[in-house]
Amino acid sequence: MRIFIINPNSDAEMTDAIRRAAEDYVQDDVEIECRLTPGAPKFIETYQDELTAAPGMMELVRANEKHFDAFIVACHSDVNLDALKEMTDRPVVGIGEASMKMATLLGHNFSVVTTHVHSIPGKEAQARKYHLQDLMVSVRAPDEPPDHLHDEEVFLDLGRDAIEEDLAEVIVLGCAGLAGLDKVMQSKLGVPVLDGVVCALIVATGLVRYGVSTSKALGYNAKYE
Amino acid sequence: MRIFIINPNSDAEMTDAIRRAAEDYVQDDVEIECRLTPGAPKFIETYQDELTAAPGMMELVRANEKHFDAFIVACHSDVNLDALKEMTDRPVVGIGEASMKMATLLGHNFSVVTTHVHSIPGKEAQARKYHLQDLMVSVRAPDEPPDHLHDEEVFLDLGRDAIEEDLAEVIVLGCAGLAGLDKVMQSKLGVPVLDGVVCALIVATGLVRYGVSTSKALGYNAKYE
Amino acid sequence: MRIFIINPNSDAEMTDAIRRAAEDYVQDDVEIECRLTPGAPKFIETYQDELTAAPGMMELVRANEKHFDAFIVACHSDVNLDALKEMTDRPVVGIGEASMKMATLLGHNFSVVTTHVHSIPGKEAQARKYHLQDLMVSVRAPDEPPDHLHDEEVFLDLGRDAIEEDLAEVIVLGCAGLAGLDKVMQSKLGVPVLDGVVCALIVATGLVRYGVSTSKALGYNAKYE
Amino acid sequence: MRIFIINPNSDAEMTDAIRRAAEDYVQDDVEIECRLTPGAPKFIETYQDELTAAPGMMELVRANEKHFDAFIVACHSDVNLDALKEMTDRPVVGIGEASMKMATLLGHNFSVVTTHVHSIPGKEAQARKYHLQDLMVSVRAPDEPPDHLHDEEVFLDLGRDAIEEDLAEVIVLGCAGLAGLDKVMQSKLGVPVLDGVVCALIVATGLVRYGVSTSKALGYNAKYE
Amino acid sequence: MRIFIINPNSDAEMTDAIRRAAEDYVQDDVEIECRLTPGAPKFIETYQDELTAAPGMMELVRANEKHFDAFIVACHSDVNLDALKEMTDRPVVGIGEASMKMATLLGHNFSVVTTHVHSIPGKEAQARKYHLQDLMVSVRAPDEPPDHLHDEEVFLDLGRDAIEEDLAEVIVLGCAGLAGLDKVMQSKLGVPVLDGVVCALIVATGLVRYGVSTSKALGYNAKYE
Amino acid sequence: MRIFIINPNSDAEMTDAIRRAAEDYVQDDVEIECRLTPGAPKFIETYQDELTAAPGMMELVRANEKHFDAFIVACHSDVNLDALKEMTDRPVVGIGEASMKMATLLGHNFSVVTTHVHSIPGKEAQARKYHLQDLMVSVRAPDEPPDHLHDEEVFLDLGRDAIEEDLAEVIVLGCAGLAGLDKVMQSKLGVPVLDGVVCALIVATGLVRYGVSTSKALGYNAKYE
Repeated sequence: MRIFIINPNSDAEMTDAIRRAAEDYVQDDVEIECRLTPGAPKFIETYQDELTAAPGMMELVRANEKHFDAFIVACHSDVNLDALKEMTDRPVVGIGEASMKMATLLGHNFSVVTTHVHSIPGKEAQARKYHLQDLMVSVRAPDEPPDHLHDEEVFLDLGRDAIEEDLAEVIVLGCAGLAGLDKVMQSKLGVPVLDGVVCALIVATGLVRYGVSTSKALGYNAKYE
Repeated sequence: MRIFIINPNSDAEMTDAIRRAAEDYVQDDVEIECRLTPGAPKFIETYQDELTAAPGMMELVRANEKHFDAFIVACHSDVNLDALKEMTDRPVVGIGEASMKMATLLGHNFSVVTTHVHSIPGKEAQARKYHLQDLMVSVRAPDEPPDHLHDEEVFLDLGRDAIEEDLAEVIVLGCAGLAGLDKVMQSKLGVPVLDGVVCALIVATGLVRYGVSTSKALGYNAKYE
Repeated sequence: MRIFIINPNSDAEMTDAIRRAAEDYVQDDVEIECRLTPGAPKFIETYQDELTAAPGMMELVRANEKHFDAFIVACHSDVNLDALKEMTDRPVVGIGEASMKMATLLGHNFSVVTTHVHSIPGKEAQARKYHLQDLMVSVRAPDEPPDHLHDEEVFLDLGRDAIEEDLAEVIVLGCAGLAGLDKVMQSKLGVPVLDGVVCALIVATGLVRYGVSTSKALGYNAKYE
Repeated sequence: MRIFIINPNSDAEMTDAIRRAAEDYVQDDVEIECRLTPGAPKFIETYQDELTAAPGMMELVRANEKHFDAFIVACHSDVNLDALKEMTDRPVVGIGEASMKMATLLGHNFSVVTTHVHSIPGKEAQARKYHLQDLMVSVRAPDEPPDHLHDEEVFLDLGRDAIEEDLAEVIVLGCAGLAGLDKVMQSKLGVPVLDGVVCALIVATGLVRYGVSTSKALGYNAKYE
Repeated sequence: MRIFIINPNSDAEMTDAIRRAAEDYVQDDVEIECRLTPGAPKFIETYQDELTAAPGMMELVRANEKHFDAFIVACHSDVNLDALKEMTDRPVVGIGEASMKMATLLGHNFSVVTTHVHSIPGKEAQARKYHLQDLMVSVRAPDEPPDHLHDEEVFLDLGRDAIEEDLAEVIVLGCAGLAGLDKVMQSKLGVPVLDGVVCALIVATGLVRYGVSTSKALGYNAKYE
Repeated sequence: MRIFIINPNSDAEMTDAIRRAAEDYVQDDVEIECRLTPGAPKFIETYQDELTAAPGMMELVRANEKHFDAFIVACHSDVNLDALKEMTDRPVVGIGEASMKMATLLGHNFSVVTTHVHSIPGKEAQARKYHLQDLMVSVRAPDEPPDHLHDEEVFLDLGRDAIEEDLAEVIVLGCAGLAGLDKVMQSKLGVPVLDGVVCALIVATGLVRYGVSTSKALGYNAKYE
């Protein structure tokens, strides 16, 4: 099985981190291709960034759908996900939807730990889109963005606050750039900590094996007449 | 006051119809500029169409924000509206949000009459995004798309069904291409029938006069740090 | 165009403040008549006050509907609004509904700043009635009612708390008596601050120009048989 | 114990029917006083009717609160209920709130059977106010209002439709004028059929015995400072 | 009338407290039988405890339904309530559902004061099941479980916090073991404080007198075919 | 990896069908053990059946948790799932939660096709518990239960109705006994058709590989103090 992971931004370092997280998870019979998006911004921080990333993302799907079994969109805000689900018959899974829905199978609620307070309104809109707004007890972000996304202490503190103050039962990492922090945080916090890349791989590889993909009945059918 | 209306598709005829509806409504002190979007598809029917229209729409805002007081996005699905609100300090109003929210000031509920069953899932997601899902009693579309968007009888029948079967109190025209049908439908159906272009003009001209625009406090602030 | 503004209480000073806010906004072709309600309490603070104001409000509509194009109810709790919408064919707009719905066009959420903690349960019920409860992130009121409604610092502090602690993107003034504070607060807080009187004028004048009024299809039709 | 039942309209015949339903239910130690509302319309059909009934209803409470232990508002739309709860320290129970909330203790959902399609928007708003909108599977009313409210067959048919088509498990009689139909309908339909007058008596007599009444903590405290 | 109260746990002391609370409330014509559940855990704290209590609870209903008019489940989490409603034609009332729904008749919202933070997720799920989640402003529990459930000061402090910080208007005692604290707390806090045992008795005795019981139309009909 | 599938009923034939569906899906490195529940009813149709199955289900977990990596509850109503999640540190996945949440990754909504109208209220309560009630557009069941659960035509017709009348985009099989119908239905209906057993295997095997299990932070921690 071959899975194509699209990093919607153009940062090579983050692309590598995503690829490593993916390869650490999958078994030998799954081949991972992880690529940054040509023409995309270095980071996806704004609504405009999402649109700027769109042509490159669509081109990656078009160029690769014959050779891969499924696609993963590796940005936690599930950038342009509806359009990709619509344009291909292959399964397309967002790391945001996969991780937040997986979280609801593991606890009574979840909290999202993310990198920047600026992304809170968008995260809340995304949770609402997925009907998860009342299961997401909080979105926690540092007052000051950390110098490095792997500044573990910052995110450990946020997770601890979510557990103690918001009574969060599960922590979802709200940014693909946090890939790799899941295990250390889970170990120190004592609750499930979910990285979206792995969650999306669980779903995507499962759907491929099951032979199921996006419904083309109506809303995701581009050729509906 | 100068209002710039963006038709997110590239159809000249629909652009003319939107301009006429706008000019019929505004007073002499409001100047309307209505343009199609270069590089956009002829119609916006799919999620991909929305992304394809994005570069042209963003370019229209960038090129014109110095010379205009507000922007209107004249597609009822409010294509790429969040990004435009984010990128400029001028008010940006979508005809979908304006018409559906205006409808809630005129009745206990509303129904959207639109052109194609294919757009129902998207319309429902849009209503949910605006927290209007329980106020929108139905989305009515013809079984067969009509030959002409101005095939008045088709839409009158849909409106009549919405009133009688769904107990709709207000009808919202769910496509910019239906501009111009509002008055004849209102006259024959006996309930308010709202064209989004006019509703957006009411809001946009009002905001300009009031000196209020999109909040840059957090989620729509592209430069947030 | 002639707009009749009903102040549901009997306070002459507040009526003057509302009139000034209205006249500051409208253009020359709109004539404003702003009146207090005979027989109403000096302030509308309780459910009983609302009912006590009802006969005078209904009489004002009956006596003036032939000579005016629209009515505005200038109390942020939209006192007796449903009955007024039902009794006349003219548009009737509440400053509460207009300002809270306008706020949702300008940000991801809003907070209401009001004069007294006692009005919080009512404000929450009102937001729920309009399906806005999840968009209204807070209702902020001073612990001690200020000596003067124009004690600007008190309300600036409340607005600042709403922005910083509740991540509010838009501030709605939750009392007609705060008319006039919008501009200074907007200037100091850096986010949109909405006065309901102006918001209702935007809607009411727009509806009159558009030729649309309350639906008489069912729930607002007093003569339904 | 003495319970005062306010019929918000001025129809003597309906008042008698309500009194009979009440007296049929209560035990010997409960004295019922049931009165029509002076100055109220003959029927409460519109929002204006509700306000017209208000002065008489408030006067009935003021004149009787010393001599009675609780009040019941015997109109299924719970006319002016908030104001009455606010004005007295005695428990005040609406037949709408009591019957719809009692219904949720007896089945997975309920349907309201009422007299006129015109009252459907109001009934839906009322259910929403009580957070019951998703438990109320339907409001069923005859296409043509029946000649007599005791035209049993009309309401039996509505109840049967609710059970078969809406999968309703409990039927709530949506008008005080239907008092007396509960037992015959329950017997023929085979599901619980609730008359609001009895439901309100269950609650009101219980609260009096328990020594509990409306909270004066905040929203129902008219003297809050 | 004879009411059978099932204490789902096997604690004799708590059973006595429940019986006393019940007998204090009912009139002479109501006979109370209150029993612990054979084979049940000493306290119901976990999901497993609930299932362990099930056989004994079902046996109590089977053995007593011929001789009693109604059943009450006297654990605030309404343990196994659906199954008991399904298995007998007699009314079955949970103290959780009765007290929380009664609270909504007395204030704009309520808070649940309970014994242990561990029960918060379950209480929230229960409120959601009853569609009360947005009316329940908080669940308050001590950081450290008190030595004695009748440690009045602990629960008074929780109630005070709920009133002052959460603006709660009504307090619901969230554990049958708190029976007996209602009156002293109501007296000191100045708001309604509801014990579920009494609330369930109000409903159960009322339903018996009214001749109404659980709907067997569909979901509670064990013999449906 | 070793997965233990609990069929909550005691029907050997259905247990075999579940085992076959599971073994058809998993790869060689996953060993499936599928067992019926000793002491459980032949079918789980009622709330009482669920409780009757509990002791046997809990015993199966206790006896096997040392030797297996995860548990699956193979009844679409997710019988006693919370208790099993609480009692073991191994992941426990219900086929109802897994299939309904997976469906939301594949379409804008889903419909559940099940065997009996009697199970509709329970299915709706279950969807609400998972916050999926507005994504589940319908529960479709035959008017007459079919003679055989593999009477393919009956369920094809239900699926077709869901797609055409309810605009369902994904079909979820609402009973473990329908295992095996997914592929033929998907092929004939042209939309994704999900069997819960496979969906639960996707989740359970993924969680085991990922090293994540139920949160013991609060609500699922039986030893919380």
